[in-house]
Amino acid sequence: MNPTINADRLWQSIMDIAEIGPTPEGGSRRLALTAEDAAARTLFLRWCQALGLHHQQDAIGNMFLHRTGIDMATPAVAFGSHLDTVPTGGRFDGVAGVLAGLGVIRTLDDAGIRTRAPLELVNWMNEEGSRFRPAMMGSRVAAGELPLDVALAMTDDDGVSVAQALADSGQAGSLTPAPRDWSAWLELHIEQGPVMEATGADIGIVVGTMHARYFQLAITGEPSHVGPTEMNRRHDSLAAAAEVILAVERIGLTAEPFGRASASWIENIPNARGNVPHITRLHCDVRHNSADEAVAMEASLRRALSDIARRRGVRIDVDPYATFGPIVFDTKLGALLRGKAAGRQLSTRDMIAAAGHDSVLMAPLVPSAMLFVPSVAGITHNPKEYSTKEQIARGTQVLLDAVLELAGTGAGP
Amino acid sequence: MNPTINADRLWQSIMDIAEIGPTPEGGSRRLALTAEDAAARTLFLRWCQALGLHHQQDAIGNMFLHRTGIDMATPAVAFGSHLDTVPTGGRFDGVAGVLAGLGVIRTLDDAGIRTRAPLELVNWMNEEGSRFRPAMMGSRVAAGELPLDVALAMTDDDGVSVAQALADSGQAGSLTPAPRDWSAWLELHIEQGPVMEATGADIGIVVGTMHARYFQLAITGEPSHVGPTEMNRRHDSLAAAAEVILAVERIGLTAEPFGRASASWIENIPNARGNVPHITRLHCDVRHNSADEAVAMEASLRRALSDIARRRGVRIDVDPYATFGPIVFDTKLGALLRGKAAGRQLSTRDMIAAAGHDSVLMAPLVPSAMLFVPSVAGITHNPKEYSTKEQIARGTQVLLDAVLELAGTGAGP
Repeated sequence: MNPTINADRLWQSIMDIAEIGPTPEGGSRRLALTAEDAAARTLFLRWCQALGLHHQQDAIGNMFLHRTGIDMATPAVAFGSHLDTVPTGGRFDGVAGVLAGLGVIRTLDDAGIRTRAPLELVNWMNEEGSRFRPAMMGSRVAAGELPLDVALAMTDDDGVSVAQALADSGQAGSLTPAPRDWSAWLELHIEQGPVMEATGADIGIVVGTMHARYFQLAITGEPSHVGPTEMNRRHDSLAAAAEVILAVERIGLTAEPFGRASASWIENIPNARGNVPHITRLHCDVRHNSADEAVAMEASLRRALSDIARRRGVRIDVDPYATFGPIVFDTKLGALLRGKAAGRQLSTRDMIAAAGHDSVLMAPLVPSAMLFVPSVAGITHNPKEYSTKEQIARGTQVLLDAVLELAGTGAGP
Repeated sequence: MNPTINADRLWQSIMDIAEIGPTPEGGSRRLALTAEDAAARTLFLRWCQALGLHHQQDAIGNMFLHRTGIDMATPAVAFGSHLDTVPTGGRFDGVAGVLAGLGVIRTLDDAGIRTRAPLELVNWMNEEGSRFRPAMMGSRVAAGELPLDVALAMTDDDGVSVAQALADSGQAGSLTPAPRDWSAWLELHIEQGPVMEATGADIGIVVGTMHARYFQLAITGEPSHVGPTEMNRRHDSLAAAAEVILAVERIGLTAEPFGRASASWIENIPNARGNVPHITRLHCDVRHNSADEAVAMEASLRRALSDIARRRGVRIDVDPYATFGPIVFDTKLGALLRGKAAGRQLSTRDMIAAAGHDSVLMAPLVPSAMLFVPSVAGITHNPKEYSTKEQIARGTQVLLDAVLELAGTGAGP
């Protein structure tokens, strides 16, 4: 019988990390490569070093914590997630997956178990993409999907580059980012939605991801004065943006329950109280379980933009700067997770991931899978984000059982 | 016969000031108390000192340039406007009025005319309100409508206070802001609308202002993640703000041609690409020739806000932080300007000012009037803002003729 996860210790470690970058409402704010992110990484590293894990860090700031196996020539079984958060982050998104991995290794240590294959616990840099675009930056660079120099040159809203932020936070490692020698990649994550709670599932087996399409829009009208300029002579870029935001929302509502469309970021120029705005920029995205449907959502969006631009006499430039997915995760690993959950009398549900995750970048390189634990009320990216101690321990137990089967406990060659 | 304005010299002085804070499109950007504003003030002061005008400056940065009269005991005839601009400013808004005043004095000097009453030329601080709220700050403080200490404590978006900006730009004068000893206040300004051009009027006689009501709105929704959060579970503050912006616009369109309603400023939190926005702030205003209609527009806006808040499950806080007008300008001064225009064979049209002006603050204190010169195509607060050399010279001639009649040229007692 495999050893049992210590739920209290795992919970405490999550609570300890949450106290770094605390927010008044009980959440956490640790944007990538800020002092708060660096402090969480330092505490995590201290815990790993106490277990004798070997630490390597690459030039984009990804952290790899290696536990030697009996058979050193065997590729490692890898798992982890990310410690960075969004500005209004909760305590569990990303953190639960990293510390579940730590919990697996601590439990193996307690039980005196050395696996045949090595294990590797990972903290990916800048999964959230809140400070530096794009999201999943660390895993994207490691996977070769984003050149290191391009990533290092990206800047935050204050003009600070990733390279500068890595240097300032002491997080630039010496390793060249590259795919690692792994036999499997597993990631535990909170669901970030209400489905598991609503259906009473203990463990979500993530079979794939949504397809997402990202757009940066620039709406250009005409500057004028809010007082004398008659309403019908205006070319107000903010009013045009308002129509775009509602069109995006409508496209998302039409695509329920498998689609989403969101306008999340806005910049308005001159944003002065006496002036009709003349340049408004928006970031938006459309997502769907089906790539064809996501493409159709984009077509709807583009029709709406043309109509708004024509009616209002404004120009709308569309930069469709990125897409991702759909990714299909490894079916054998999915079956393994399903079986391990059943072995612990836990109910499962097959899920589609609606958000981006580092596992999306790993899937083309190595057999990969994700498992979800429930999010209470489906609330996430929010200080109210919550999963119970038991929910997280159950997911971590399934992770441990799967890792042990993959890594093996037999004697080396 | 009164002397004739030197149109070329007046035009050249406007072009010279426009080169301070030039923008690529040919406009000017001189936000109040920036280095650019200070440079324009310094050049203007140099010109005034070359004419022997006596310079006084008050603690909020208003500049008073005094030309002695034959009868020193008589209150001065005052005129002027402002040199600051909006971020996307043109070459004429405010500047035309200050330099028309300078043109009047230069022309009197050329002709060797000393008036019986003194003359006072004024550059008001921060008329535009783009950097520091509220607009017409200098005249508002001088009129006793805004306490000096409150104004000095106001901050721009970077947290710089008015007091700090006055100190940094060297524009804090020693005079206590207070009403001046004036018999009349006159302001020449560009129309900032298309009516004069459309109707062929040379001179606009501004008989009063619109009534304006200003609101700061805060919309509070719920933070969540754009990927997993289903559309119908969101409380998206930016989508709610989009409905508000369009409701404001609709209220303005319904009130045409005498009303305006504008949403000009927005702040979105967290404004991060992975997050459903949960706090969005808006600035908006409603204006109308009729105060009753403006109040009715506010009532429409509040009904729309209640409806949006209820349907979307968001909170909308309304801060109705200021109103102004309607102001009725002095009818005798209006008649004087009308007569002086007729004496020069210029056509006139009675106008309502839709924007705020420093004259609004002067009107309760001293007989006040404004005259407009046409704006080509009605475009303003825009680099394309334009009035011709002849249009400005005609308005300045009417200003000179009115000033001479008010100040008199007879011998002193």
